[in-house]
Amino acid sequence: MGATTESPRQRYRAQVQEEIKQHAWEQIATAGASALSLNAIAKQMGMSGPALYRYFANRDELITALIRDAYQSLADAIRSAAAGGADLRGLAQAMRAWALEDPQRYLLIYGTPVPGYQAPDDTRQLTNDVMTKLLEAAGGAGLGALPASPLGEHLAASDAGWATAYSAEPERLHRAVVFWTRLHGVLSLELAGHFSGMGFDPARVYAAEVEAVAGH
Amino acid sequence: MGATTESPRQRYRAQVQEEIKQHAWEQIATAGASALSLNAIAKQMGMSGPALYRYFANRDELITALIRDAYQSLADAIRSAAAGGADLRGLAQAMRAWALEDPQRYLLIYGTPVPGYQAPDDTRQLTNDVMTKLLEAAGGAGLGALPASPLGEHLAASDAGWATAYSAEPERLHRAVVFWTRLHGVLSLELAGHFSGMGFDPARVYAAEVEAVAGH
Repeated sequence: MGATTESPRQRYRAQVQEEIKQHAWEQIATAGASALSLNAIAKQMGMSGPALYRYFANRDELITALIRDAYQSLADAIRSAAAGGADLRGLAQAMRAWALEDPQRYLLIYGTPVPGYQAPDDTRQLTNDVMTKLLEAAGGAGLGALPASPLGEHLAASDAGWATAYSAEPERLHRAVVFWTRLHGVLSLELAGHFSGMGFDPARVYAAEVEAVAGH
Repeated sequence: MGATTESPRQRYRAQVQEEIKQHAWEQIATAGASALSLNAIAKQMGMSGPALYRYFANRDELITALIRDAYQSLADAIRSAAAGGADLRGLAQAMRAWALEDPQRYLLIYGTPVPGYQAPDDTRQLTNDVMTKLLEAAGGAGLGALPASPLGEHLAASDAGWATAYSAEPERLHRAVVFWTRLHGVLSLELAGHFSGMGFDPARVYAAEVEAVAGH
């Protein structure tokens, strides 16, 4: 954005892409990601279908752009909290704020997969960025000790990239994984409306889960 | 099924409804629940649209029937495990087996909500059945003690039906809620494919989370 090396033509292209993505988010909210229609977006924008395909060749390319934006935005939120000195508890609150700000965005990456859609391999790098920040915070100060666990040993034996830097600290791997799964458990049920009518405050459940991960 | 009080006409109606639901599940798998089309199902079955509308008046009625079946099937799986003497750990394994058997069914009730769809109030009774079984098991033998917690006190103060029978046991309420949110956290990320390529066995993460809830 605002880079002076961009030609007017490139800036125009980026603007149109942004506008297409905005229409796509609206369609997702009203009809779901699987019903995303490039032709419907072209019509809304007063473009022909073929004109729009010059920006996104097909539905999956558009979904990939939205998923990349969503992960990027989550990674930014976490990075910014970490840069501000947030510990594991602070990161958890940043993640919750990010999810509540735009539930569609959260659900597009962590909700029901879009049938027939295959994410390209390079989105893995973005998910790795998020996991790396969690792993850093999972060994931070002010956290309770984690007892040795069979799960930690199992995770440390993984040869996948996310775990190798901390394979000597299985408890940290354990903490980072359950930080992710537990907070996702609360957030996704809250965003899907499962707690409505149950008479409790989802923020209290979230906070208790954060303490359970951070405190011991 | 097989009740002798049903007329041939009623049996035929039930058969057609089952067949419609089968086609609906196939559509959900290939195109997503939000793209469910009664007209497409009618066409596949060689019926007219109006003929099919005599079985399900609209998309939401059909989705409600699928959601009811899904909850009923989950409640049956849990009830049957409980009747066989399963404790909290056994119920957790029954839930996991049920989810893996048919991920679409799990994701229809616990995944991304279908845009524009409103569940009728009476599906709440089915979710209550599930919660009641969890609450019974959450106080069973062979579990570690739960320390008093602010979250437990908060849950016990709820005047919603699910909690009132155990308001004198806030720790049990706490355990039942995190049993639900933690196991959902692992299952839903697993079913959505988020663990693929991470080099660990999701069953191990699930088992560790079950122990964390049951053991202390």
